[in-house]
Amino acid sequence: MLCLQAPTNAGWIEAASRNMIALLCDHAHCERKAAMNGMFLLMQYPQRDALVREMITLVEEETAHFKMIVGELHGRGISLRPDRGNFYAKQLAAHVRKQDPERLLDALLVDCLIEARSCERFTILAGCEAIPEDLRGIYQALMSSEEGHYLMYVELAKRYFSPDTVEARLEELSHIEADIVRSLTNQPTMHG
Amino acid sequence: MLCLQAPTNAGWIEAASRNMIALLCDHAHCERKAAMNGMFLLMQYPQRDALVREMITLVEEETAHFKMIVGELHGRGISLRPDRGNFYAKQLAAHVRKQDPERLLDALLVDCLIEARSCERFTILAGCEAIPEDLRGIYQALMSSEEGHYLMYVELAKRYFSPDTVEARLEELSHIEADIVRSLTNQPTMHG
Repeated sequence: MLCLQAPTNAGWIEAASRNMIALLCDHAHCERKAAMNGMFLLMQYPQRDALVREMITLVEEETAHFKMIVGELHGRGISLRPDRGNFYAKQLAAHVRKQDPERLLDALLVDCLIEARSCERFTILAGCEAIPEDLRGIYQALMSSEEGHYLMYVELAKRYFSPDTVEARLEELSHIEADIVRSLTNQPTMHG
Repeated sequence: MLCLQAPTNAGWIEAASRNMIALLCDHAHCERKAAMNGMFLLMQYPQRDALVREMITLVEEETAHFKMIVGELHGRGISLRPDRGNFYAKQLAAHVRKQDPERLLDALLVDCLIEARSCERFTILAGCEAIPEDLRGIYQALMSSEEGHYLMYVELAKRYFSPDTVEARLEELSHIEADIVRSLTNQPTMHG
């Protein structure tokens, strides 16, 4: 259902579960960037009313997740670390075409794939026995939220483009995404 | 109490109240940019725990205001317009020094002054009889919120710098801000 063409590499969960603080810090930044990305997208398309409304809801939710993960860090006496960037997201974003309407379609579908991958990884984290119970509960909750965002992005794309156009481009981008995921080096980050 | 060294030009309220849709569109973008600015600031100083927490609260509030103003527009059948930029905020931001710790101090105090000016202008809008009653109620509510943000920025500055340093730089920047405000050409925008 998530349209992912390759599973996360088997080695990632070990790297992630052995470095929970690094994972939490990177995860916090992912939530922050998802919120900022929502703000950027609506700023680029202010006259698309439905997009603006969906992005506001997304920003609210991602900000709440960011707050929750920062709370987990601060509650452990740990400060947020500087953002070290996201190789995966950057690679994928490079495939967004530069001119509209293709730019809008690609932006929505790239965001959709990032949400789908996050959903897959939260599912893995929620089921990993090496991870503390309280954090597994958080990953379980976030899993559903990311799935909702994935669906929202696809529906938004289908509001502005024909279903065939959306499905064809999603198919192309999902193969590109799978190649990027296979090339990852199992870092203790959400998309490492 | 707001530390402003000059009142808004008398001509602004007439321009603003005669162009309520333009004002609402610009206002929505101001709330969006205030939220994004909070995200940028905490991204630059992730290891300042108190700053991170205060900025998350600010982002939540500014996003809620953005949502409310977009709702006012959409409720009137009007889409958000493209952001036309903010001459006032850009002029003021040019006075933020480039190196830390001065950069942090200046960023906090520039944001503080923008909140104070917004508070002053919401007060004017709330008391303007040419503006519809429901919008005046919104401006009244936002007035208190912006005052809270103004105080939060000063307190945050005093957490990281001595009160004397904060007061002296706020005095300097408030005179710069007043000069910028006097030079404005009474556009129907929040800081026009």
